[in-house]
Amino acid sequence: MKIKCEKSNFLKGLQTVAKAVSAKNTIYALSGILITAKGQEMIFRATDIEIAIEYRDSDLTVVEEGSLIIPGRYILEIAKKLPEGEIELSSEGYTFNIRYGSSEITVNGLDKEEFPDFPVVEGDIAGVFSLYRFEKDIKEVAVAASPDESRPLFTGVLFEIDGQNVNFVATDTHRLAMKKSSWVLTGKENSVSVVVPNKILQEIIRNDFEEDSKLEVVIGMKQISFRHENTLYVSRLIEGKFPNYHQVIPEAERIKAVAEVDASYFSATLERAFILSKELVREHVGRVSIALANDMLIVDSRSPEMGHIHEEIPVLQQGEDMSLVFNARYLLDILRVIESETIVMRFTGANTPLVIGRKDDEGYIYLALPLKA
Amino acid sequence: MKIKCEKSNFLKGLQTVAKAVSAKNTIYALSGILITAKGQEMIFRATDIEIAIEYRDSDLTVVEEGSLIIPGRYILEIAKKLPEGEIELSSEGYTFNIRYGSSEITVNGLDKEEFPDFPVVEGDIAGVFSLYRFEKDIKEVAVAASPDESRPLFTGVLFEIDGQNVNFVATDTHRLAMKKSSWVLTGKENSVSVVVPNKILQEIIRNDFEEDSKLEVVIGMKQISFRHENTLYVSRLIEGKFPNYHQVIPEAERIKAVAEVDASYFSATLERAFILSKELVREHVGRVSIALANDMLIVDSRSPEMGHIHEEIPVLQQGEDMSLVFNARYLLDILRVIESETIVMRFTGANTPLVIGRKDDEGYIYLALPLKA
Repeated sequence: MKIKCEKSNFLKGLQTVAKAVSAKNTIYALSGILITAKGQEMIFRATDIEIAIEYRDSDLTVVEEGSLIIPGRYILEIAKKLPEGEIELSSEGYTFNIRYGSSEITVNGLDKEEFPDFPVVEGDIAGVFSLYRFEKDIKEVAVAASPDESRPLFTGVLFEIDGQNVNFVATDTHRLAMKKSSWVLTGKENSVSVVVPNKILQEIIRNDFEEDSKLEVVIGMKQISFRHENTLYVSRLIEGKFPNYHQVIPEAERIKAVAEVDASYFSATLERAFILSKELVREHVGRVSIALANDMLIVDSRSPEMGHIHEEIPVLQQGEDMSLVFNARYLLDILRVIESETIVMRFTGANTPLVIGRKDDEGYIYLALPLKA
Repeated sequence: MKIKCEKSNFLKGLQTVAKAVSAKNTIYALSGILITAKGQEMIFRATDIEIAIEYRDSDLTVVEEGSLIIPGRYILEIAKKLPEGEIELSSEGYTFNIRYGSSEITVNGLDKEEFPDFPVVEGDIAGVFSLYRFEKDIKEVAVAASPDESRPLFTGVLFEIDGQNVNFVATDTHRLAMKKSSWVLTGKENSVSVVVPNKILQEIIRNDFEEDSKLEVVIGMKQISFRHENTLYVSRLIEGKFPNYHQVIPEAERIKAVAEVDASYFSATLERAFILSKELVREHVGRVSIALANDMLIVDSRSPEMGHIHEEIPVLQQGEDMSLVFNARYLLDILRVIESETIVMRFTGANTPLVIGRKDDEGYIYLALPLKA
């Protein structure tokens, strides 16, 4: 293998696939990145078995074809420190060479045969998302997913597909987020529900995208693939039956009060209240009282040891006065990602879910249970 | 106590004294900040017994005098999150109140009598530094100080004062930095050597300063004070006899070779070599070979497991060819802080100190011992 390229090309490729490099060293090849020079392309591949990422770059010169596994995180760290400008990458046996100016780095690589087959996802369920919208939708939904790997279903996002309509849903059982979205069907089948690991979704939406960016998706029996331009992401699907979330969403007649609140104002208030609550014992951290009365949202947090915070936020109120106790963390999480200056809070009672939505988008809801007062 | 001020005034005061707030909670008052409203001033004071910091602000309105200890880190965290604009600070008994808009935070404070007396440093040794220059001098010298608290002398910077001349010196026994500087004497005595904890120096030089900034210094028997504008820093001096460093600095006739090197180029090379060396066993991390020959500085680092880096940097060479083994960390540390685009490396032999200086300033030297080849 011999390739001439800019340092920036090499670095971009490594960075794009790095998330799929296994952090564990038990299988050496999985902690590596497979570099392949073929035709006019340089191909970067990494997989930790759960997810796999491939990136192709043809904006360079392939002098000689070839393929080698290189140590992933290590080469990435070196590539970050390389000087800008042209570099030459080459292999000789199982060693990998980086030449720049009159300097040279030689790294021990591994036979390409040690690398697992890169997964190919085939299936009749396929479609195209606007990546620009997908990024925003997933951010608003995935915030309700759980980080707890011991209950895998809750670490994923449900894709509930019915023709052109796609519902994204996530829940950690304490809160739930749902977004009605859509895609352009390109496959034959048109109805399926799959749970996609949040890990691969976060990797896909890591960047900002142009409004016309596309994300091509193919759903197989056990895997899902996403392609954006030169990057292909593959992930296993999470097995199991996602809970019936429809029954959790309160019907309109159960809404007793509605308040429209400035999101950034409310967020700043909760952050201050959260600091005060940090002195509380563990299960009470973030515990705040929220009351709705006289077109005011009144936030109180009290720590016997430290003190007390009392804030009043002007709101637009409809319906009854309300009073409930909440985990500020659950509110701060959604306020951090919601794409709306004004949020709509729908109260159903002191011990029943609070439903938060966007003023401009009926298709999004986030609901969370209050704490026991 | 009652004070009206901007949130920014309150935050600035808390941030300025925060470093002296004790991180340990054994004596509650030491984890607090003493707030005093007196005359037209608000005074912030904190001390962990080793160091003490005082900040005065008169750009506010004192409505009622008073004094109270407030929980330091906690109030600082809250102050960072307060909205911009006017706030009202007040005390009632031992509670402290922050009012902003229609909101209010009440925090439990502590009787001002619990706060230790703020140290007053008196002595005949006093002078004024250009703070602009002091900041640069201390950065270049303190890099050689040790973080190891078990040998206190090496955690400080020696101030060797003789009239208008001040030598700053620091060493961790593996390397040593010295800078010839000066001050304007204002006291009577004119000759003394004291060792000042690096902790207080780093706090003083934390900001950037105008060229005409002044730092007033008073040296007492056991303590030293520094005043810059409204901020007063007091620290204990480190006891003990600083090693005789003069004998460590090689005389001119022992210099066998000199190389002038571009500092940022050399630094980038060493960073890459350092990454490669990280796979080595602990005491060998950072181990690089440096050779001087044919107007080239040749840097090599080799890890049996990972690979090899070889770089050549064009330099201006005088004298013999040289070859030695070095801890890259010792070179990277000085390259990070040295205020010079070109550094001068003076070699005395394969097992004797390498002396690094600035091209434009004979008054600064940094020397470090090579590793055994």
